[in-house]
Amino acid sequence: MKNEIKIFSPATVANVSCGFDVLGFCLDTIGDEMIIRKTAKKGIVITKIEGFDLPLDPEKNVAGVSALAMIAHAQPDFGFEIEIYKKIKPGSGIGSSSASAAGSVFAINELLGRPYNKTQVTDFAMKGEALASGSEHADNLAPGIFGGFTLVRSTMPLEILQLPTPKDIYATIIHPQIEIKTSDARGILPKEFPLKDAITQWANLGSFVHALHTNDYDLLKRALQDVIIEPHRSRLIPHFAEVKAAALANGALGTSISGAGPSVFALSRGLENAKSVENAMRAVYAKTDIAFETHVSRINTEGIRVL
Amino acid sequence: MKNEIKIFSPATVANVSCGFDVLGFCLDTIGDEMIIRKTAKKGIVITKIEGFDLPLDPEKNVAGVSALAMIAHAQPDFGFEIEIYKKIKPGSGIGSSSASAAGSVFAINELLGRPYNKTQVTDFAMKGEALASGSEHADNLAPGIFGGFTLVRSTMPLEILQLPTPKDIYATIIHPQIEIKTSDARGILPKEFPLKDAITQWANLGSFVHALHTNDYDLLKRALQDVIIEPHRSRLIPHFAEVKAAALANGALGTSISGAGPSVFALSRGLENAKSVENAMRAVYAKTDIAFETHVSRINTEGIRVL
Repeated sequence: MKNEIKIFSPATVANVSCGFDVLGFCLDTIGDEMIIRKTAKKGIVITKIEGFDLPLDPEKNVAGVSALAMIAHAQPDFGFEIEIYKKIKPGSGIGSSSASAAGSVFAINELLGRPYNKTQVTDFAMKGEALASGSEHADNLAPGIFGGFTLVRSTMPLEILQLPTPKDIYATIIHPQIEIKTSDARGILPKEFPLKDAITQWANLGSFVHALHTNDYDLLKRALQDVIIEPHRSRLIPHFAEVKAAALANGALGTSISGAGPSVFALSRGLENAKSVENAMRAVYAKTDIAFETHVSRINTEGIRVL
Repeated sequence: MKNEIKIFSPATVANVSCGFDVLGFCLDTIGDEMIIRKTAKKGIVITKIEGFDLPLDPEKNVAGVSALAMIAHAQPDFGFEIEIYKKIKPGSGIGSSSASAAGSVFAINELLGRPYNKTQVTDFAMKGEALASGSEHADNLAPGIFGGFTLVRSTMPLEILQLPTPKDIYATIIHPQIEIKTSDARGILPKEFPLKDAITQWANLGSFVHALHTNDYDLLKRALQDVIIEPHRSRLIPHFAEVKAAALANGALGTSISGAGPSVFALSRGLENAKSVENAMRAVYAKTDIAFETHVSRINTEGIRVL
């Protein structure tokens, strides 16, 4: 058994228009790298964090919290140290905390000889994710750990479905460098919604799942709508309507807020289209004084991987 | 081209636990029969209705209203007369009005040489269904016309998805002979629902669609839950909780209200189980003074058929 591994823990997109709180997919061109090695001393030590200023105290770091939860259960007679090379900006809306929380437990599970299945790994990672978001969510963790498109049917007990990934599907992400407080992203949502809007949403989610199974891109396009969350949260993202219009005018299958934002994702059929959508989205923010980053990625069907 | 056809227009189950207003499936062992023949005189005449006391005036009869809508569009230089042998009791909750509304236009489309596709046929049938229910719904019409399990993604414009039907799946229906007024079935529903319940519902509907595609009976069972409508409408159905408990205790995959009730449906893996669920459901009402009928049926993947 190895004593050290290096992993790539990818960024992820949660909600995906019609699947608030349950749907997600995994990116491939942006993610954190982490090195985890066994130590004689029991416990978890975070020895290094590069990229962003995050706490080294394992009880205050999402990667540490999930790791502590796993070793509390596995009870190995050794410990682990963690180096984090953070590439996903915290607060960007593409699963930064999730990548950390999932990465450490994925790696520790490998070093322990895989005593846990992917759902169990996700369960431990939820402990870390809860530190970041205040509650146990798996909508970013699931695509990171399982890869592809995932549907979290239930968190209690945790149940994750792996959905098929159409071969030719690509994602574009634009991250306007503004801060949205989680409390604002939550506070702006009504507690209750009209039944007719909920019906529209579940009709679209059911259709989206059917479209993934049948490779029906036209249906994907029609199903990628969000009548529940986007009308509220999009008000927190400057120029959202223009970015969305630009992506759709350039042939995107659909576009909406990634997670709680501020990043906006689009899905495209084919890499060329994804790049053209990227250019169209960039052009919107290029006219403003808001800094931004973009990513184009195939859907990563593997999830976290050992490097 | 034929001058007369006889059709079987099956009963259907709408809502199906997790798919309120969008999901439905088609039964095979109960349905109306109709004979439709061309007449030299233009227009629609209903010459006979057997089984239940329903209006012969085509403008007051759902089969007549949908037929009138179709010929207003097709403009044939002849007319049609309709005989209805009604087997599905009006108000039973298994698509009685839908079977009539769909049957007449299905048959007329056949006699016209099929100028319309199934979605267009459904669109005309919705005019008849609106007479019965006050608004244009397709959740019973779609499974009747397309067969199998269907998902109505949208009614405006009308878009119907045909979902796969696992081979070994059977339905049990119990119809307690009580009357639920449509106005009560609607009035009892809140106008708004908590977001967390809506999330549960769409997670289950997405999972149900995935389960149909993957023949995953365990997942079907977990997904067949209704946290939105059943808690309210079940109060209108005496002994609902006992019937449900009896069906589940006898191995049903799931059970809930069929349409707006009062019929209750269950889904089973295999005919034997469906029969055992039928017996368990019958035993509940047999102890009461409420008359009831039951049906066990395979899922009818063909829909309305020419006899």
